[in-house]
Amino acid sequence: MTSKWLFAFESADKTDKGLLGGKGANLASMTQLGLPVPAGFTITTEACNFYSDHGSFPDGLIQDIHEAAEALEAKAGRKFGGASDPLLFSVRSGARFSMPGMMDTILNIGLNDETCEGLALKTGNPRFAKDSYRRLIQTFGNVALDIGLKNFETEFFKVRGSREDYELSAQELDGVIETYKRVFREKAGMDFPQDVYDQLRIATEAVFKSWMNNRAKTYRRQEGIPDNLGTAVNVQSMVFGNKGDTSGTGVCFSRNPSTGEKGVYGEFLINAQGEDVVAGIRTPQHIDELTAVMPDVGKQLFEIIANLEKHFRDMQDIEFTVEEGKLYILQTRNGKRTGPAAVNIAVDLVDEGLISSTEAVMHVSPEHIEQLLHPQIDMAQVTAEPLDSKGLPASPGAAVGRIVLDSDEAEKLFRESEGKARLMLVREETAPDDIDGMVVSQGIITARGGMTSHAAVVARGMGTPCIASCPSLILHEEERRVSIGGQDFNEGDWITIDGGTGCIYEGELPLKAAEFGGKVARLLGWADEERRLKVRTNADTPQDARHAVEFGAEGIGLTRTEHMFFEAERLPHVQSMILSNTEEERREHLEKIFDFQKQDFIGIFEAMDGKPVTIRLLDPPLHEFLPHDAEDIDKMIKAVFGEITAEHREEIVNRIHGMRESNPMLGFRGCRLGLIHPEINEMQVRAIISAAIEVQRQGKVALPEIMVPLIGHVKELQLVEQTLRRVASQTMEDYGEQIKYMFGTMIEIPRAAVTADEVAASAEFFSFGTNDLTQMGMGVSRDDAQKFLGKYVEMKIYPADPFNSLDQGGIGKLVSIACELGRKARPGIKLGICGEHGGDPSSIHFFDSVGLDYVSCSPFRVPVARLAAAQASISARKSSGAAGA
Amino acid sequence: MTSKWLFAFESADKTDKGLLGGKGANLASMTQLGLPVPAGFTITTEACNFYSDHGSFPDGLIQDIHEAAEALEAKAGRKFGGASDPLLFSVRSGARFSMPGMMDTILNIGLNDETCEGLALKTGNPRFAKDSYRRLIQTFGNVALDIGLKNFETEFFKVRGSREDYELSAQELDGVIETYKRVFREKAGMDFPQDVYDQLRIATEAVFKSWMNNRAKTYRRQEGIPDNLGTAVNVQSMVFGNKGDTSGTGVCFSRNPSTGEKGVYGEFLINAQGEDVVAGIRTPQHIDELTAVMPDVGKQLFEIIANLEKHFRDMQDIEFTVEEGKLYILQTRNGKRTGPAAVNIAVDLVDEGLISSTEAVMHVSPEHIEQLLHPQIDMAQVTAEPLDSKGLPASPGAAVGRIVLDSDEAEKLFRESEGKARLMLVREETAPDDIDGMVVSQGIITARGGMTSHAAVVARGMGTPCIASCPSLILHEEERRVSIGGQDFNEGDWITIDGGTGCIYEGELPLKAAEFGGKVARLLGWADEERRLKVRTNADTPQDARHAVEFGAEGIGLTRTEHMFFEAERLPHVQSMILSNTEEERREHLEKIFDFQKQDFIGIFEAMDGKPVTIRLLDPPLHEFLPHDAEDIDKMIKAVFGEITAEHREEIVNRIHGMRESNPMLGFRGCRLGLIHPEINEMQVRAIISAAIEVQRQGKVALPEIMVPLIGHVKELQLVEQTLRRVASQTMEDYGEQIKYMFGTMIEIPRAAVTADEVAASAEFFSFGTNDLTQMGMGVSRDDAQKFLGKYVEMKIYPADPFNSLDQGGIGKLVSIACELGRKARPGIKLGICGEHGGDPSSIHFFDSVGLDYVSCSPFRVPVARLAAAQASISARKSSGAAGA
Repeated sequence: MTSKWLFAFESADKTDKGLLGGKGANLASMTQLGLPVPAGFTITTEACNFYSDHGSFPDGLIQDIHEAAEALEAKAGRKFGGASDPLLFSVRSGARFSMPGMMDTILNIGLNDETCEGLALKTGNPRFAKDSYRRLIQTFGNVALDIGLKNFETEFFKVRGSREDYELSAQELDGVIETYKRVFREKAGMDFPQDVYDQLRIATEAVFKSWMNNRAKTYRRQEGIPDNLGTAVNVQSMVFGNKGDTSGTGVCFSRNPSTGEKGVYGEFLINAQGEDVVAGIRTPQHIDELTAVMPDVGKQLFEIIANLEKHFRDMQDIEFTVEEGKLYILQTRNGKRTGPAAVNIAVDLVDEGLISSTEAVMHVSPEHIEQLLHPQIDMAQVTAEPLDSKGLPASPGAAVGRIVLDSDEAEKLFRESEGKARLMLVREETAPDDIDGMVVSQGIITARGGMTSHAAVVARGMGTPCIASCPSLILHEEERRVSIGGQDFNEGDWITIDGGTGCIYEGELPLKAAEFGGKVARLLGWADEERRLKVRTNADTPQDARHAVEFGAEGIGLTRTEHMFFEAERLPHVQSMILSNTEEERREHLEKIFDFQKQDFIGIFEAMDGKPVTIRLLDPPLHEFLPHDAEDIDKMIKAVFGEITAEHREEIVNRIHGMRESNPMLGFRGCRLGLIHPEINEMQVRAIISAAIEVQRQGKVALPEIMVPLIGHVKELQLVEQTLRRVASQTMEDYGEQIKYMFGTMIEIPRAAVTADEVAASAEFFSFGTNDLTQMGMGVSRDDAQKFLGKYVEMKIYPADPFNSLDQGGIGKLVSIACELGRKARPGIKLGICGEHGGDPSSIHFFDSVGLDYVSCSPFRVPVARLAAAQASISARKSSGAAGA
Repeated sequence: MTSKWLFAFESADKTDKGLLGGKGANLASMTQLGLPVPAGFTITTEACNFYSDHGSFPDGLIQDIHEAAEALEAKAGRKFGGASDPLLFSVRSGARFSMPGMMDTILNIGLNDETCEGLALKTGNPRFAKDSYRRLIQTFGNVALDIGLKNFETEFFKVRGSREDYELSAQELDGVIETYKRVFREKAGMDFPQDVYDQLRIATEAVFKSWMNNRAKTYRRQEGIPDNLGTAVNVQSMVFGNKGDTSGTGVCFSRNPSTGEKGVYGEFLINAQGEDVVAGIRTPQHIDELTAVMPDVGKQLFEIIANLEKHFRDMQDIEFTVEEGKLYILQTRNGKRTGPAAVNIAVDLVDEGLISSTEAVMHVSPEHIEQLLHPQIDMAQVTAEPLDSKGLPASPGAAVGRIVLDSDEAEKLFRESEGKARLMLVREETAPDDIDGMVVSQGIITARGGMTSHAAVVARGMGTPCIASCPSLILHEEERRVSIGGQDFNEGDWITIDGGTGCIYEGELPLKAAEFGGKVARLLGWADEERRLKVRTNADTPQDARHAVEFGAEGIGLTRTEHMFFEAERLPHVQSMILSNTEEERREHLEKIFDFQKQDFIGIFEAMDGKPVTIRLLDPPLHEFLPHDAEDIDKMIKAVFGEITAEHREEIVNRIHGMRESNPMLGFRGCRLGLIHPEINEMQVRAIISAAIEVQRQGKVALPEIMVPLIGHVKELQLVEQTLRRVASQTMEDYGEQIKYMFGTMIEIPRAAVTADEVAASAEFFSFGTNDLTQMGMGVSRDDAQKFLGKYVEMKIYPADPFNSLDQGGIGKLVSIACELGRKARPGIKLGICGEHGGDPSSIHFFDSVGLDYVSCSPFRVPVARLAAAQASISARKSSGAAGA
């Protein structure tokens, strides 16, 4: 039964993905691991290549298929094409790489007029048998003979009307089958094959043909996959969980995918197929009850689960079917899980000795850590009792929002509020077309469902808090109101949920950020041991700085000084400064801001005691500090001049108008400000050095790194440096005390990147401003990009929004050119990044690969960055190890 | 007399600029060429270095100086410090490189109380002798002993009042001298040295010290000149042209510097010093009269001039002085000349067998060719008689402007009109503080002066038409009016001048562009033989295209299709298209533009018959086609909808508002338009291919090169290419006729430059859009840059406005990276540039050096580019020859 063209699962070389395809190798693995997998065989990729070259099967393949099918019959004790209890097959394509454009699965090959009756009799469920037969004709016609689906669906709709599929009677389905056969004959120019071997042969051929269809070829060309890999074909015996009370089907996890709690977690249905579990028509039983219902099967399943977890060294997601008392494992894979579950499982697996701490770090994704950042209800601030309505805690985290009863409405409210609306989507259950409404909601509650329902799965994937299945929830959609635990709410009312406990609260409760303790702290501790990249934070206030330190920040990578300029008591001085006509006037007003600035820096240095603090000199265009509407302008005139006169108003309006820019992004800002008005830089540098000395006098350590924004040419930096060194020296002299400081620059203009060797002559450090570098390097204004960037991602011009995830192939090239040049000119130059990409995991991998010293991100992303940086280090070690081996 | 530290001009090694400095080597050259140069010696740079290291002169130097001075005395037959007819010296610094910050010249070293009397007696001009003595005390005090000039000037002003210097009597000057001596004593703490050798020693020391002053050190650091080069000191005998009627002074050119006409051209004054010629107080005589006044001197001078031209193989600018019948050549150098003169001289020198055609190409500067582009009065259009007022044709070209009588007013009018005012500066004569007014004027007329007066020299340098010395011009400044040839004009009246003939016309005459024939054509023909770079033009219309071909354009490097969209009969269709809600509507309106576009292209292909035409697909943001003020909006609504209603207005205003962008430069434009709305590209490509085929059917050759703007990622280009190739094939199929076309892209986004290897996979050619590449690469919006870019050039951050002359060190680096990557991926890829830098000579040198195939510039700059390209080729050959040798 093992020929050159075909291998049974149990005798195939499970490591040869090239010959068997990915799916074939996987089925061989599971079979050879001793799992009770439904038997089957794989037709090799070489057979496919032969078919592509010659347009026909290789000699002997038909014979091999017959023999292999007979072997499966022998194993099952049933006949392929047998009139009673027929053996059926699924046929699936399976190339080496998973690939769109390839042929879909065809289930239930082997059903014909006769075997359909046999299946109906055997399952005692004629509706099921006939519906399976109907689906086979439709899928087979569509997939293997290219008959448009619409041809079938139109006919089916005539019979079904607005009912669900399962509401059709067996008799009605008989009619549909006859119609389908007619459609098939008309479109394919042949009858639907009653010979089951014809079905198998045609299906196999269709898989081979699909390898060379246009969609597949285009995809391979785009992805650089060679045409001569070919695809394999997997033929597997079908098993049925709906053959009576000794049959059944279920889905389970080896640990709780929501919390990570130990113990098998899942559901099953007796006398049902897999789709029944997902459809949610019958309420499944808890997996623990299986041992009561089917003691042997239960025992066997739990043993298998335990072994699988040991074998794969991770939590498993297992699909199984019991056919007449015999257990079959349909699939096992590493289970999807929530963030808290991921952390708990990874740490537990280490404690159980199954994996190393390094592996644990790789088991948790940055997105998991991100989920942990979901806020919790701040019970310290309120006393609130949950409603009498506990539901399933399907996706953790607390959320607050206004009730909205359908997804379209949610989307609309979100759009109209420009993304500001906080919404709580409340639904009977959710379906795929609810996805847009789910995306824009803070949280989701459903009345029906379960831990594996659509709402639960999707919400966990998105990290959105969700309570799935809340029995006391009653929806009155037409009246736009709901009742929860007996209490009435109108659409638009505020409620709060805790997706971790399943509790629902009336009103808008205060939330607080998650705390990082226990297992998370252990995991992040392991991450810290692994990573090479330091993680800093972007923080403009002492509060932010303290938060970030709690989250593990090792310094500040970016303190923006302009936010400080906006504070109410300073803004009038800032505005007076901007409106000054002479340097002298400007200096006078700057003097009034000086003390504020110094206090800002003292606060930050104190919070960061001993950790470096990168302070960026004033960056934004000055007109950002001026008001633009009439009322604010009058307010400013009052503040600046003391009184409002027509002359003042005219002057100010003219000044503001004169400061407008066509492309402010590329205008008079950044270091350009300080070069034209050096007094601004002077005040800031004096404030920084003074603050550092005063903090030092408290016995603390201040490590300022003064950073110049928007450098394009080294000469700009040299000129700023002259001013800055002079002021710093003078300030230290005035205090009679020395302080160490560094002087460096942002690299955010492409010119600076490609001349970084020159720039490095004056800069002790670089910090990549990847936001602006992306804007200028790609010629895309972030503010205007919505007109095309979304479409660009759809058209796959860029794999992701380049403002979220660094465009490594382009902007990344500028970054690596600058790193190389910078290090050449100044070996050991300190390199960091303070753009928003500093908190994006895939960008962090890139930054690790080009050898930056640190990334800097918002305080709440620091834990994410710590993990991503650790994973980058581990991957780098692995691939260099692999390269070395 | 030749020691280690000091060399007489006649015995120095004229090739050793390192030892003698530039000036010293030049004086040695002239002397050794046999020119009657005033005798002198050079103290070496090594002496300077010794002084810098030890703080004192090297042993023997003082002695050497004495001996060298005595040798000069012997030659002159006069005594340094002699009581009657004293020998005087000038002392000048002279480093290897000319350098600001170094000590100024001190003239008349050797004047003291006694020798001053001797000079007065000898010249018979006590006022001159005393004024020279006064100036020596002032300059010596300021330059050698660091006494602020103000100290002297304040005292001088007390005596002079509002008179000119030369109006002071000898007696008054005696008083000034006494006061100056007092100031000197008070500030320097010593008397003004009466010992002439003390004067010489102190002056020499001052030169040495100035080498290490801060200003010089800073300059050297900025320019990378090593500190240990040192400066030389040149000591030269003074000669005087004011020693009576056998003395005199003059300036002459070996050919006419304004027209290039053969024959010595210049002026002299008997019994005068050089400054008298420049000051214009006395009217000089024409150089031809010299042979009549001083036959021997005249003959000698003309012989010397002829020999100098042969020796230096270029037109010479010579300063000479006759002292008591003896001719001295003070200076000879290649003479500055106007554009027409440069061309005529270069071609004549070739015809005379003095230089090769290659050398001729190097003798003319691109700026000279640019001057030829100055317009002429278009006499075909008008009959106009010049006023009865012919003046000196001091700088060629015609100019039209409104009369303005002072430079401040000119500047003000220019500024207030935002550079639009066309002004004619009319002055008695000009002085250095008129420069700003001259810069902003179209032309200049002066009442007094001459061909070497300030106005004439400066105007020629700037290429501004100028009539210097117009005898019939009378200014009534207080009444703000002038009289020219007896006719009255008020300030603000229009007049026209022809700087080539010296004629002045009433009113605003029409001008026409210069024609390129005769010698210019020969010279440019030689240039064409030398150059490697092709020169194309940017042209949007058949007229422009024809013009450019006349100027020698070899193709079109950029046809912007958007200009065509603005024409009156198309704009409503364009606007309707933009305001369409569906692709279908857009296609309908585009269809109406199609025929226009096709006709545009037919015209251009016809004009360029056989020459390549690069056509850029639509580039600007669509909102540029929409009106912004209420009136124009209503006009558009009428045109688009047929009637104006409140709803239409509201809708349109909202649409226009919605299309506004924060940074339109980086917004929805370029290829982004065609990717979101492919129907625009489709229409344009169909028009291009249709036009090409229809032109081909006429028996002409159309070579379209279709260019996609604003590509950042190769995938954008691939997507456009798909559409474009499909439409092109379909169009050719429809016509049943094939046409060759190329497909390529602009490189104007930094990302495209650094990923040019990827981009080249889809692009058959690159055209660098250096305008946008400069904006994005430097992060500078051209529209907003006036706030700082001027200051940046002043601060020497950039050597020139990077929008005029390519920033070679930064943006140039992006260009050369892109060239390298592009050629690597597609050997032989066609490379060009169509930004405004394509017409800038120094940028053209750069583009030649990175191996572009062509530059493209505006039609009128094509001749400039041809010459610059030739010079680039010649320089490249020279330096590669030098490198090879």
